Amino acid sequence: MTVKISQTAELQKFFEEAAGFGNDQGSPRLKQIILRILGDSAKIIEDLQITDDEFWKAVDYLNRLGGRNEAGLLVAGLGIEHFIDLLQDAKDAQSGLTGGTPRTIEGPLYVAGAPICQGEARLDDGSEEGVATLMFLQGQVFDPQGQPLAGATVDLWHANTQGNYSFFDQSQSEYNLRRRIVTDAEGRYRARSIVPSGYGCSPDGPTQECLDLLGRHGQRPAHIHFFISAPGHRHLTTQINLSGDQYLWDDFAYATRDGLVGEVKFVEDAAAAQARGVSGRFAELEFSFQLQSAPVAAAEQRSQRPRALQEA
Amino acid sequence: MTVKISQTAELQKFFEEAAGFGNDQGSPRLKQIILRILGDSAKIIEDLQITDDEFWKAVDYLNRLGGRNEAGLLVAGLGIEHFIDLLQDAKDAQSGLTGGTPRTIEGPLYVAGAPICQGEARLDDGSEEGVATLMFLQGQVFDPQGQPLAGATVDLWHANTQGNYSFFDQSQSEYNLRRRIVTDAEGRYRARSIVPSGYGCSPDGPTQECLDLLGRHGQRPAHIHFFISAPGHRHLTTQINLSGDQYLWDDFAYATRDGLVGEVKFVEDAAAAQARGVSGRFAELEFSFQLQSAPVAAAEQRSQRPRALQEA
Repeated sequence: MTVKISQTAELQKFFEEAAGFGNDQGSPRLKQIILRILGDSAKIIEDLQITDDEFWKAVDYLNRLGGRNEAGLLVAGLGIEHFIDLLQDAKDAQSGLTGGTPRTIEGPLYVAGAPICQGEARLDDGSEEGVATLMFLQGQVFDPQGQPLAGATVDLWHANTQGNYSFFDQSQSEYNLRRRIVTDAEGRYRARSIVPSGYGCSPDGPTQECLDLLGRHGQRPAHIHFFISAPGHRHLTTQINLSGDQYLWDDFAYATRDGLVGEVKFVEDAAAAQARGVSGRFAELEFSFQLQSAPVAAAEQRSQRPRALQEA
Repeated sequence: MTVKISQTAELQKFFEEAAGFGNDQGSPRLKQIILRILGDSAKIIEDLQITDDEFWKAVDYLNRLGGRNEAGLLVAGLGIEHFIDLLQDAKDAQSGLTGGTPRTIEGPLYVAGAPICQGEARLDDGSEEGVATLMFLQGQVFDPQGQPLAGATVDLWHANTQGNYSFFDQSQSEYNLRRRIVTDAEGRYRARSIVPSGYGCSPDGPTQECLDLLGRHGQRPAHIHFFISAPGHRHLTTQINLSGDQYLWDDFAYATRDGLVGEVKFVEDAAAAQARGVSGRFAELEFSFQLQSAPVAAAEQRSQRPRALQEA
């Protein structure tokens, strides 16, 4: 028979003590959260008869996960970040907050403070010229009534042809493939960049180690991240995932959603290239966004998630 | 009304997919554990209405916790390591495996490979002479019938007067205050060392950060860790916590237990000091251990917990 003690009065009292219920200092909210986590953890240990070796392997894993700064990657890979989006969708549906471009996960690779450009920007530093396919990305930001939103901020970031992100990949220049573009009078943004490659978890990292044990790959389709914001409107965190990618609907981070597939059009026409001021094959991608009205002022801001900030 | 979706068939299916139930690779055991953790985590998020900011603060906390290698310290401080001892006690009681010295937590600061000595050892490197109080520690290891166990290994480690442990505190010499002593024909071990001070969590570390928010201190009483092992006998992980310490029954790691209090006797007598070959005030501590028989061969070994190993 499985031995269980976690629900006894003695153990409940012990967990309350450990969670700080025996004192009136600290944070009542964190005490509540920790008490719940302690009780649930104890139940998992009992119900699944977690062995000492399994428990300590998990503790060691947490050390290695944090040591590689991969906690944000793991919560994406295990679908918890997508679950939070689905839960927010359900909350929105209940309160009638619907419409606009769907949200999807932010991922752990945003860096605050990218250069701000008016209307248009070049995102790539040219270091992958000859290797990368040039990409012309453009679109509009609309309000809930379908009117163009001038002065909206389109904060976008994406990987290079190796699937790597500047800042985290120190071989790239500062803020490479990261810009904030302020929409023009027609709500329009225009970006010249390169077609990104899909992202893959580090093969030797703890996230991939877990995925391997779950029989799962750690690949994402090529994609472009966006924060879209405008005064009076609800902050939108989303991505467009590029059509034609083998991982488009097999994303280890579950970020691809209906309404968020970007149709990349590859252009081989020399005249079209010349009109763009470039030569050779290039890509065009048009994607527009629609924001919701902010139900409260705080909704205009993104979450307070701790994020990287490039040192100037 | 609280919005909940985690128990819907759609979400259950999603979590099964994320946990790898859609493939036949990997570890069925880990899939089972991850599925349970995903479901329970989703329920916590829903039930406690965890905000985005709280969730991402937790993810960031895990990164910082692992970055400082403190996951093992946190599970001690939150009482989970003690809970595992209590659960093992309950399992032992059910299977009639009782008697002997009580177990208590190992903590995260063991280092494998300490020097092996026969019968007696000096643990300290003399670097705290004049600051530390000398301590003479001795006792016997007994079998379940109360007979002395010759050739048992007493693997012990403790902090210096600053509450710091060698290896983790790089200012100390290799294996300072760490030895393996093999008991003599009478089952006896003798150690010359210094009286340790209590351990405190790093004030700027993530464990103390959590404890602060729970209104709790991060202090331990002065104590000495032991692994006791002998062929045919069950491995014992325990500690003796020193009498008279203000934190003896207020240990942030909940390691102090009845039967594990070491009565330190301070001796001021010059003749007694001379008989010991020392001068001035010193401490005596007598503590004996009784092992259980190993129910199976594997029980002779300590857990496979990943542990530090000093590089030679």
